Amino acid sequence: MATGNMPRPVPERIQGAIRDLTALLGERATAAEAVREHHSHGESYHPAALPDAVCFPKSTPEVSEIMKISARHQVPVIPFGAGTSMEAQVNAIHGGITIDMREMNKVVRISAEDLQATVEAGMPRKQLIKALANTGFTFFIDPGADATIGGMASTRASGTTAVRYGTMRENVMGLKVVLADGRVMHTGSRARKSAAGYDLTHLFVGAEGTLGVITEVTLRLHPLPEEVGAASCNFPSIREAVETAIEAIQLGVPVARIELMDEAQVEACNNYSKTSYPVAPTLFFEFHGDSPRGVADQAETVKRITEEHSGVGFRWFATPEEREALWKMRHEAYFANCAVRKGGKMFTTDICVPISRLADCIVESKKDVARCAFPAPVVGHVGDGNFHMSFILDPNNPEELAEAKIVEEKIIRRALEMGGTCTGEHGIGTGRKKYLLDEHGAGLDAMRAIKQAFDPDNRMNPGKMVEPQVLFPRAE
Amino acid sequence: MATGNMPRPVPERIQGAIRDLTALLGERATAAEAVREHHSHGESYHPAALPDAVCFPKSTPEVSEIMKISARHQVPVIPFGAGTSMEAQVNAIHGGITIDMREMNKVVRISAEDLQATVEAGMPRKQLIKALANTGFTFFIDPGADATIGGMASTRASGTTAVRYGTMRENVMGLKVVLADGRVMHTGSRARKSAAGYDLTHLFVGAEGTLGVITEVTLRLHPLPEEVGAASCNFPSIREAVETAIEAIQLGVPVARIELMDEAQVEACNNYSKTSYPVAPTLFFEFHGDSPRGVADQAETVKRITEEHSGVGFRWFATPEEREALWKMRHEAYFANCAVRKGGKMFTTDICVPISRLADCIVESKKDVARCAFPAPVVGHVGDGNFHMSFILDPNNPEELAEAKIVEEKIIRRALEMGGTCTGEHGIGTGRKKYLLDEHGAGLDAMRAIKQAFDPDNRMNPGKMVEPQVLFPRAE
Repeated sequence: MATGNMPRPVPERIQGAIRDLTALLGERATAAEAVREHHSHGESYHPAALPDAVCFPKSTPEVSEIMKISARHQVPVIPFGAGTSMEAQVNAIHGGITIDMREMNKVVRISAEDLQATVEAGMPRKQLIKALANTGFTFFIDPGADATIGGMASTRASGTTAVRYGTMRENVMGLKVVLADGRVMHTGSRARKSAAGYDLTHLFVGAEGTLGVITEVTLRLHPLPEEVGAASCNFPSIREAVETAIEAIQLGVPVARIELMDEAQVEACNNYSKTSYPVAPTLFFEFHGDSPRGVADQAETVKRITEEHSGVGFRWFATPEEREALWKMRHEAYFANCAVRKGGKMFTTDICVPISRLADCIVESKKDVARCAFPAPVVGHVGDGNFHMSFILDPNNPEELAEAKIVEEKIIRRALEMGGTCTGEHGIGTGRKKYLLDEHGAGLDAMRAIKQAFDPDNRMNPGKMVEPQVLFPRAE
Repeated sequence: MATGNMPRPVPERIQGAIRDLTALLGERATAAEAVREHHSHGESYHPAALPDAVCFPKSTPEVSEIMKISARHQVPVIPFGAGTSMEAQVNAIHGGITIDMREMNKVVRISAEDLQATVEAGMPRKQLIKALANTGFTFFIDPGADATIGGMASTRASGTTAVRYGTMRENVMGLKVVLADGRVMHTGSRARKSAAGYDLTHLFVGAEGTLGVITEVTLRLHPLPEEVGAASCNFPSIREAVETAIEAIQLGVPVARIELMDEAQVEACNNYSKTSYPVAPTLFFEFHGDSPRGVADQAETVKRITEEHSGVGFRWFATPEEREALWKMRHEAYFANCAVRKGGKMFTTDICVPISRLADCIVESKKDVARCAFPAPVVGHVGDGNFHMSFILDPNNPEELAEAKIVEEKIIRRALEMGGTCTGEHGIGTGRKKYLLDEHGAGLDAMRAIKQAFDPDNRMNPGKMVEPQVLFPRAE
């Protein structure tokens, strides 16, 4: 279903654009209904919105030509990766041309000796990890979904390992980007650091395709750890679990993962993934080290902290198979939640606060949803201060969506008061635009000015993030 | 001496601005010659250039009022920290108002429990480290000079510990900034990560005061290491030394410092700091760990690598006093070089390349300067792929400066061909503007567009970095 009241490009412009796209790409440009429907949504409650056409470029020059077509006919473009985004970043709410990047999925260069790799933006994360096999290095950002690297860069993605290895913000060294008029530019450098000019790389990381189309990404790699271990521990309350995580971070334990689940989430996961974890607030840890001794040291420190917080049932996952099963279960949490209510639509919060406020924030947020009509299991990348509540909504009951929006607003305003952010890793899209002013104040004017500088026609994924607006209107 | 041929503001505007500044700040605004002279230069060969006035605000609202005065009279502003910048970022080449930030040197907030601190931009680095005493945490970016935190943010500074702890790019979490019209905004958040909007923090980090005036900085802190060790090792050639560093990085040894000196630099330092290190290509290491065993493990790995590269005289610095003397000597390298030639002017290169190319880059660059008339000792933050050649010039011989510029150009073009950058940590200022196009190509247009968006009047540290220019000129 398309959103009814959004302005869409005039039909003649669309027809002209499709004619030019077909001349450029042949069958790799299409207005077929089924393809448009597939590209009308990501993974979220947001209403689907069909693009007018979808195209599948194979190279940066082709993307450049597509942007020139967009400019000529004044038609929006929407970059599309794996369609796993959580905040409607790919929904074509003003129609236009969706650029499906998945034919651009090649390795450009692996420079293991420089701890970096350059790939086309449409490469899926798991394919990259395979391509790195036998190099001794890997790419660690793990949002769960098999997202494309370009999509992950565009939404500033992170996930379970960010606590040790950082987010896309810390792991993208450079980009190739096509601007609104088809101009191609690169950002950053292959050197580990540079003080040469404005930081364009970080400008495009997290811009959700609203400033340009990312076609190549140079990533920082990390050595594969010599030794890995994992553990879980249960707690009498969610507060005790979160305080354990906080203390581990404050002590500087270099944990590779600290994941929280509340009892509702453990139960949903047990049912979906056929596991049998004790149904209690639980922390799951992973430890990376250069020796068994190093990993054991970390685990001992963490175990001591769990005991101080009444943790019980500290369980060690010694084999790769056990660990794989553990993280598979964790990554299926989204689908486990979908299965809690048949046909349920997922409305996911994405709060992130300074670590010292995390326990209060989660406990208070859980109180907010306690009286809601829908289930709301909790998972958290708690080492980062980030957690998600998954509101599992009845799609046939609009009152639940209305209630979800009200309670999310309450939760977000508390997080902002605590010095946090309305989104740790999922992004703004359409649903969180209203919070940008609350979070950034005058900074929102600066963001609009940047949008104005790069996309004055508002053709680059319009309706997402911010609208263009000059910062200093001139008198003349 | 002011640069003669740069356009300066018309006298009536300057007089009007000084009148308004005096009304605002009283004696904290001055046009006294001695004060202007002090604010006319940083630490470099670049010609000094006097501002028309200097003012000393005590608060962000005062900086905001100063920016309104600048806007009203169309007079440039130049932010000034400790005056330790290496690339003329503080020289008032178009005259105007220099804003000395050093009266804004207070701690705003230390949140050790969140591993972060917020300080006013004029706080000197060493004062911050003192303020963090007894918290168990510290701020690790160490450019040597006792620069202000705002100056370090503005130049994207790094230094000896960046190999482990990152640069200002990785350690600034948020900023308070005053824009060209006096508007105050904050960037970033106190959460460890956020996907909420464009990354304004990274836009101002490294912008050299050309987009706004940074008045507060929120920094990431790191736990003080439980255990510290340091070592040095000599090598038969600079190539062997650099290859040792490269291998340590590729193996993922989490060294806290790997500093290179060539024999000329060791000799200069011995003479200045009254030390007696063997005059040979030398690496200096520091190791941080959570146990004596952890530090010893790192040191053993590194020692083995040094032996494979014909390293000799591996020396261990066991006590804090020995280590302090070592890094004091290292940080005095700049002054040691100044003393090599009486009255010598320092022209410092700042190449950074992908780590795998570093040995070739240094060896070839040393060949380039071998026939020059001036000495050119080498220091390097080699774990980052970054090194400096200090051309020690006779200030009375303009031919040496001309020769320095020619050889620097050759060295920079090689670094760019290797995938590197013209500046790893010192910045662009005026002297490296010519390389921005070579390094960034079309990216330079994007930088000019950002400058246009934030500073269309070109009043914010004009003449540095880039000039404003629209990216998409409109037909209408």
